[in-house]
Amino acid sequence: MTTDIQSNLEAKNGAYAAEFTKGHLPLPPGKEYLVVTCMDARIDTAAAFGIDLGDAHVIRNAGGSSRDALRSILISEQLLGTQEIVLIKHTGCGMLTFTNEDAHALVQKNLGPAAAAEIATLDFLPFPELDQAVRDDVLFLQKQNTIPESIAVSGWVYSVETGRVRRVV
Amino acid sequence: MTTDIQSNLEAKNGAYAAEFTKGHLPLPPGKEYLVVTCMDARIDTAAAFGIDLGDAHVIRNAGGSSRDALRSILISEQLLGTQEIVLIKHTGCGMLTFTNEDAHALVQKNLGPAAAAEIATLDFLPFPELDQAVRDDVLFLQKQNTIPESIAVSGWVYSVETGRVRRVV
Repeated sequence: MTTDIQSNLEAKNGAYAAEFTKGHLPLPPGKEYLVVTCMDARIDTAAAFGIDLGDAHVIRNAGGSSRDALRSILISEQLLGTQEIVLIKHTGCGMLTFTNEDAHALVQKNLGPAAAAEIATLDFLPFPELDQAVRDDVLFLQKQNTIPESIAVSGWVYSVETGRVRRVV
Repeated sequence: MTTDIQSNLEAKNGAYAAEFTKGHLPLPPGKEYLVVTCMDARIDTAAAFGIDLGDAHVIRNAGGSSRDALRSILISEQLLGTQEIVLIKHTGCGMLTFTNEDAHALVQKNLGPAAAAEIATLDFLPFPELDQAVRDDVLFLQKQNTIPESIAVSGWVYSVETGRVRRVV
């Protein structure tokens, strides 16, 4: 069975592949940096952040959490030469709208006790204030022994209303 | 201090924001699906997978690991209405090139014992075979009590050499 989403992927990707000319880029990011940002559907990382194909690792998760991204960051830094980290959260983030208790209660209500038990210890990593969350995440990274001081870390907010980034730290 | 990477972000984003016209998209993904894929620099998710702005959550981490993405997937599904999951790993993935032992030894060598101790229990989630890793990840998701059977899950491989996706499961 093929869903509409899968058909769309095949059709749009077919057109992309037909015009594709960048098949010989190396594995390590050409500009030796990585971006951590949110999974939010309103962010086109390549276009909005000016990332050309092959330039940078792009890590995305709910909220653009640097804690959640740490495994990926270490691989990027230790195995693939990344020298700089750019963390970008955004306005209107879903993570501003709920608490851990809300999320666990929702799973219990929608999916039942077996599902709730399966993720009983999961921290959904919501945050109540945007700029503070950016500062907290940058500080978290700077405190890691696995991230040396030579790695530049900056923190930004992207506005989904205007398409503009603003530096926080 | 502003690095070249940060200057590039500001300049390219300024041009993007100047032409931006999509400031009123809603928070939930318009097409109610999410994509999990790798952080690899050679993947432009919007262009290669045909994702228009606002359509889908995009989760990216080292290897496109569904295990690593689970927190984000649950938020997408339980709080933001996602009904379908598309998992896409890719040829030439860095995760095919090392073992957990390699990565831990590298951290010890490059960053010393305090750093190594800090991540002593970290699973870097490498995998030795690509198609099998796609099948394993899809099965992992289908086995979760938190992901009901009504959520369609498909698994794909993207070729960084040709720009083309191929369905695995």
